[in-house]
Parts: sequence; structure tokens; C-alpha cells
Amino acid sequence: MAQFQKVQRELSNLRDAQGVLYWDMSTIMPPKGVERRSEVISYLSAQVFKIETDPKYGALVDELYTHLDDMDDREKAMIKDAKKSLDFMRKIPESEYLEYSKLVASAETYWADARAKNDYAAFRPILEKIVGFNKKIAEYIGYEDTPYDALLDLYEPGATVKSLDKVFQELRDGLVELIQKINQSPVTIDASILQGNYAVEPQKEYNRALAQRLGYDFDRGAIAESAHPFSTNFGNSDVRITTAYSKEDPVTAMYSTIHETGHAIYEQNIPDDLTYTNIGRGVSMGIHESQSRFYENILGRSREFLEAEFPNMAEAFAGLKAYSVDDVYRAINKVEPSLIRIDADELTYSLHIIIRYELEKMLINGEVNFDELPQLWADKYTEYLGVTPDTYANGVLQDVHWAGGMIGYFPSYALGNLNGAQLLYKGILRDLPDYQELIRTGQLDKITAWLAENVHQYGATYEPQVLIEKITGEKLNAQYFLQYLKEKYSKIYEF
Amino acid sequence: MAQFQKVQRELSNLRDAQGVLYWDMSTIMPPKGVERRSEVISYLSAQVFKIETDPKYGALVDELYTHLDDMDDREKAMIKDAKKSLDFMRKIPESEYLEYSKLVASAETYWADARAKNDYAAFRPILEKIVGFNKKIAEYIGYEDTPYDALLDLYEPGATVKSLDKVFQELRDGLVELIQKINQSPVTIDASILQGNYAVEPQKEYNRALAQRLGYDFDRGAIAESAHPFSTNFGNSDVRITTAYSKEDPVTAMYSTIHETGHAIYEQNIPDDLTYTNIGRGVSMGIHESQSRFYENILGRSREFLEAEFPNMAEAFAGLKAYSVDDVYRAINKVEPSLIRIDADELTYSLHIIIRYELEKMLINGEVNFDELPQLWADKYTEYLGVTPDTYANGVLQDVHWAGGMIGYFPSYALGNLNGAQLLYKGILRDLPDYQELIRTGQLDKITAWLAENVHQYGATYEPQVLIEKITGEKLNAQYFLQYLKEKYSKIYEF
Repeated sequence: MAQFQKVQRELSNLRDAQGVLYWDMSTIMPPKGVERRSEVISYLSAQVFKIETDPKYGALVDELYTHLDDMDDREKAMIKDAKKSLDFMRKIPESEYLEYSKLVASAETYWADARAKNDYAAFRPILEKIVGFNKKIAEYIGYEDTPYDALLDLYEPGATVKSLDKVFQELRDGLVELIQKINQSPVTIDASILQGNYAVEPQKEYNRALAQRLGYDFDRGAIAESAHPFSTNFGNSDVRITTAYSKEDPVTAMYSTIHETGHAIYEQNIPDDLTYTNIGRGVSMGIHESQSRFYENILGRSREFLEAEFPNMAEAFAGLKAYSVDDVYRAINKVEPSLIRIDADELTYSLHIIIRYELEKMLINGEVNFDELPQLWADKYTEYLGVTPDTYANGVLQDVHWAGGMIGYFPSYALGNLNGAQLLYKGILRDLPDYQELIRTGQLDKITAWLAENVHQYGATYEPQVLIEKITGEKLNAQYFLQYLKEKYSKIYEF
Repeated sequence: MAQFQKVQRELSNLRDAQGVLYWDMSTIMPPKGVERRSEVISYLSAQVFKIETDPKYGALVDELYTHLDDMDDREKAMIKDAKKSLDFMRKIPESEYLEYSKLVASAETYWADARAKNDYAAFRPILEKIVGFNKKIAEYIGYEDTPYDALLDLYEPGATVKSLDKVFQELRDGLVELIQKINQSPVTIDASILQGNYAVEPQKEYNRALAQRLGYDFDRGAIAESAHPFSTNFGNSDVRITTAYSKEDPVTAMYSTIHETGHAIYEQNIPDDLTYTNIGRGVSMGIHESQSRFYENILGRSREFLEAEFPNMAEAFAGLKAYSVDDVYRAINKVEPSLIRIDADELTYSLHIIIRYELEKMLINGEVNFDELPQLWADKYTEYLGVTPDTYANGVLQDVHWAGGMIGYFPSYALGNLNGAQLLYKGILRDLPDYQELIRTGQLDKITAWLAENVHQYGATYEPQVLIEKITGEKLNAQYFLQYLKEKYSKIYEF
């Protein structure tokens, strides 16, 4: 085990270096630095690859894997995670993997170009190749029921089509019903009250203070600007976020900060003794998004949070002073079915994901012709959301994920919503009955402490759904998220 | 040669990664990230060490070194530089080098503590050890005349005590004479007119525009903030600087930006085909400082530059509007002998260096007792500058360099002044007779083009003094810098 930890520490050093290079590239690197930077990142990736494919390391992990029964939960998780990565690399022929890496490395540029020109035909052959590779990868990895399971498991360990079909179907039906109710509601919401003319500097100050109020530790964190907000971390002692500011709309940056702070607080609360290991991190995207979306939506867009925060908002953004807490509460919770996933509100967002999930399954199972894909995409938007893309750019070409080879990744976003609501109803409200009062009075530290104790402290010790069951006492259940939405939006839209 | 270049490229990738990690550490890393970051940097240093001490690489360099006669100047420089590094590592026993590395890694903390407490006795034993190691290192490396030559050559290739003694003595005498004249001058200058109350954001905007006017290319550059200003680069396509802002004093930040921009323009002008090699960089600190000090002082503190720049300064810093160009010109060129090197003006600065040079020689030659060092330091300040330290902190303990093991490094600062003035009189004014008019009319691109053509394009192809002689037609001569100072300050101080 000591030798294994030594290798993990070496990998951790290299990954920190890569992480800092990416962070720097996204936040401050000048445009012409990109070529040289790419070479440095590739060089370090090759070092990681060399360590991970060293036969001595492989033999060590294989050997340790035969002793799982003698290990505690953490050690087990470390060895299982290492074995999984190792098997992945062993099963996929190196030449094919290299070919695939090259393909996805260049695909993003083709995708961006195709999207800019609204030219699906230009991107289609690349998408076909990427899907083809992913089918082969699924076969190499192996699966029980369907090839798509193999891909899902890469991003959300333990997730299967069988389990997701059930929860996503319930979720889809529930959401479609809620949208119908909202469409029929006489309530209209003016979200334009959030717009105005706001300098960036005071926004930065406000967002910094906001992150601090949420429990983000600036001795172990930093906020910078980037085109697309993200969070990244180097262990638990250096956990950073970025925000993108707009001079017209300070509230989008505000909620982006809350979202990324949710991710960051998760990583800041990983225990010290896991920090240099392969399980010293959030366990999956689906759990990570449960934290970020909990802070952003369940907590951050709640009536109680707004009551506490509105005075700060109004002080930072003078234009808001003309409105009441209620006006702003409604504005930040306006539901409006739309075409673009990343602009979607809390309620309709999951439908964007379900559409992608349904299409990815069909792509991997060979049930859809690539020529028909855009139409199928449009049809599902019409059916579930009542809106129909009029271009490829605002339809099938809108996301970068497929160009990046990330097939099987989208479901995690919706799982984040479901996990978050289940943690609320079957965990937080059970253990903190004064939850709403805590928010209203700004005692967020008690809520963060609950998340740290129940979720964060484990890092990647337990598979996502094992963790959820361990905390909430039951398997993933879409009804909690639907219940949450219904309670909240029936009040806002009076149905 | 191809194999050699391949290794250089690998080293270049690792050094880029290290450079970005340092940059990040100095500009944005949160305080508690330091422990983990130090480990990552050490890990990459070990990788560099492994590559540089690989016997196969050593044999390759040795072999190439026997073929210098068949090479062009650039290849020769690459191999000579590699051979020098290699021999350095071969000559110093690894165990001693490691011990020394550990000593200097911890010494900075002891030094900072000793300085804060004004406690020379606490730092003395560490300084003794560091000097002792440097003596041994000098013996291992070897030298012709005196051990200090071996150390000088590490920072300023080709520099010797014999050559420096001559120019520094001339320089010292000339400076002492100038200071006497200034002390006797009836002219008094009020530098406090530069102080005021200035927000940081507008300063940032001003400094950005200023760097651009000087010819700094933001497509290949970025400015950030750090406690101590510095410049760093990853090849010629990503060359960055930092500035430290003060709310009371915008002019110090301004000249710091000009100084660092001078370093950066040098690196931005290194030719593409040298950029991944060991000579794709400024050749030495003494030449680098000649560029930064040329921009900062010779150009930046000239009457002509101020005429062109004053309207921009007055627009950015409204408090300056009350004064004339002449008032501000005098204020930025006020001469005042003082105790602290880094606060020294252009004229007295070199005397601070000469004092350190004289003491370092004595330390390495064993001519001074460590107990007497502070008194000797104080005596030299009294003699050359007419000021006497009243504490260790503003005397012998003021600089970090010795704690960092950098003995032999100080002279480069003064060489920068001498090189810059010699380039002015025996190069720039010869080739650009309308030099002053170019500055007055903001045509700095023509001056930068001259520096690129004559200095920057060579990278580290020629040793510093070979380069100076190649450009100016003569060996280093202190009279040019003295002439420059005399012409400038006799007008300001009317002597």
C-alpha cells in the first residue's frame, strides 16, 4: 500500500502541474501562448501515461486487488479506482486510443466552426467517427446489459441504463406536467428588472463577499475571471473558481459564483488524509453537481436566502433598490422553456439533459441515422419543451461535449438535480429541522457542516449511488426533485 | 544535434511548467497552497535533474563539444552552455549540492525573521555556512585568478574580478564625485508632488496602455499584480510582467512597469527558431538589466519621454495636473543617497552594488570576519554615500540574495547600467541620430527595432561582453554611464 500511495503522490504532483497550466490558460494566458502551452500539457500527459502504464505499477495494483477483503473502505476505493483506470487502458489498444485522442483533440475546432456556420453536414462525419469510437470503447470495456452502460460508468460509477431509464422517465413526465401548469398560469414574471448598467469592479467585490458568506475559505481559494466559469483544485488547500462578468446582468454572475462555490466547498472539505490519493476528490459529476446545484438553486434561489441576501444585492447593484424581495425572487425563478441548455432555468434544465440521454442511447445502440439526428433532436424539443430549434446551432450543434468525446456525461447534470433534492428531503430536513430559519438568518455554516459531515468527508470512498443510499436510506428517487419543484413553483405560479 | 535539441525541448517543457507554477504562486495562489505547490515544484525539479544528469545526455554533449569548430555561432553557444551546466553538476558532489540546496531553501525564512527582529547574530551562522559552501563551489568549478571569478561567471558569463575591479573603481570614483556636486547644489527638488490618493483600477488601465505604447505585445503578454514586481516568460509567445500598485504613489508602479516591460520586450524579440533551445533567452542578468534600465531610466526618465507621456499621466492621475512637465521631470529624477538599495535613485544605485561587490570579494577570499561584516558595510555606506545604517535591517540584512545563495549576482545590476549607457552612446545615437526626436514624438518602435536588431535577436548566442563589444566596437567602459549621468544631472542640479 505504501508503494501504491507513493505512485499516487507522483501522479498527484503531475496532475497539479497540469491543473495549474489549464487554469492559467483559461484565466490569463495570452492568445499566442496556446501552441507552446499545448505542448507542455501533452508532455505532462505523456508522463502521467508512462507512470500509469508502467508494468510494475500494474502488477502492484493487480496484487493489491486480490486483498480487497483485508482493506478498509478507503483503501478498497483507492485500489478499485486504480484497477478500473488500469483495466481501461489495458483493454483499449494503444494505437486506437491514440487515434481517438487525436480525433477529439481536433474535433472541438471543427465543431466550433460548424456551429458558427450552422453547418451540421460539416460536423456529421466527425460525430459519426466519435460515436463509432465510443461504441468500440464500450465493447472493449464490457457491460452487462447495453453498451451505453459502459460509457455511463466512466462518468457516474455504477449508473446503468436500467436505473436511469426509470428515474428519467418519471422525471420527464413530472416536468412536462409542471411545464403545462406553468404555461397555463395567469402569472407573468418580468425578469428584465435584473438587467441594468453595472461596472465590473463592484461586481467582483460583491461576488467575493458572497462566496465568503457561503463558507468558501479564501485562505485556500481564489476567484478569477474566465470566458466560461469553472472550478478547479489542487488538493483541498488550493480550490479555485472563476466567474464571467457582464456589465448588463450582475445576477447571472452571482448565481454562477454560488454554483462554483458549491463545487469548491466540496473540495475544500475533503479530509487532509485523502488529499494526495486517487479518492481525495468529489466522487462523480453527479454528486459534484448535486452540491453546486444545491447551493445555486435549492439554497440560493430560495425565498429565505433572498431575504437574507437582498440587502447586500441592493447595496451592490443600486438598480435593484426599486424592487421588492418578491419581485426579485420571482425574477430569478422565472420558468421559460428555451432551446439552449446552458441558459435553461432550474425547472426545464433536466429536460434538456433527458433529450440528450435518449439520443445518446440511440446513437450508441445504432438506432438512429446521423442524417436524421437533427430532426429527432428538434422533435424531442417540440414534444417535451414546446419549443423547436430553427437552426442547427441552437439545436443539435449547441454543446461541445460530443466533440470532446464525452458521450455518457450529460446524465450527470440531471442526476445532480435529483441527488440534491433527495439530500434535502431525506437528509438535511431530517437532521436540521430549522433549515429554513438557518438560511434566513445567514447561518449557512450549519448547512455546510452537514454537507461536509455527510457528503464531503468521504471523497470518492463510496460510489455515487451507494453514498446517496447511505445518507438518505433509499435508492435514487426522482420524486424528491419533483416534489421540491412542485412546492416551490406552485407558489410562484399559483397552481 | 537533433537528439540534443530533443532533450532541450523536453527541458523547455518542464521549465515552462515550473515557470507557470511560480508565476501562479506569486500572483494568485492562496496562502495555504504553498506546501503542496512546493512539492510539485520540487518534483519537476527532480525531473529536470534526472534529464540533465542522464549519462547518455552527458556523453552526447561531450561528443558534440569536440565538434565546436564545425558549428555555427548559435550551435556553438548551445553546446557550450550545455557543457557548462553539465560540468557544474559533475564537479560538485551530489550530496554536497543537496545539502546546500536544503540550506538555501530554509535560509530565506531565517533571514526574513532575522531582518524583522534586526538580529544579525541569528543570521550570521547561516550566512557563514552559505559563504563556506560558495567558496567550495568556486573551488570545484575552478577559476584562473580568484575564487570569486568562478561565482561571477555563473551569473555573468565571462566576467572576472580583474575586469570588474577596473570599471567599478572608475564608476565608484565618478559617482562619488557627482554626489558631492549634487550635495553642494543649491537646487532642491520636491518629489512629494508625485504623491496623492489614486485608486488602483485606473492605475491598472494606465499601466496597460503605457506598456502598449512602449511596444509590449499583449497578444503575447499579460500583466498581473504581485508583492514584488517581476517578469517571466515561456518562450517568446508568452512573456509576462507583474506590477505592485500603491494607492499613494502611482509613479513607482509606472516606472516598475516600464522596467519590467524592458525585460519583456527583450524576450518577446527572441527569434522563433531559438525559442525551444537553451539559448532562446536573454543572455545574462547584466544584459537583461541593460534593457530594463534603458527603458526605465535612460528612456523613461528622460525629458523627451516625459514631454510625450505627461499628458497621459495627468489624465490618469489628476493630482499631477497642477504641476508642469519640468516639476515632474525633476521629481522623478531627484537624487538622494539612502540606505536601501531597492529604493535608490538611478545615480546612487550603482554604489549600493559596488559596496556589495567589494564585500562579496572579501567574504569569498576570507578577508573579512563575519562579526565585522555589519561594521564594514556601514563604513562603506558612510564613505561612498554619506549615510550610515542605524540598524542591521537597513544595513547588511536588507537583501535576500545572500540567503538565497546568490553570491556573485549583485554586480549584474550595475553592469546593466553600464551596458545600457554604452549601447546608447556607441550604438543607438550612432545609428539613430534623431533618437531624442523619436522619443519626443512617441516613435518608440524605431528604438525597440534597433534593440531587437542589435541585442535581442541573438538570444544567448554571444557572451555578454562579446555582445557589447560586437555592437559598440569596444570593451565595457564605465565612462559612458558617467557621461550620461553628468550630462543629465548637471542640468537638473545646475553644476
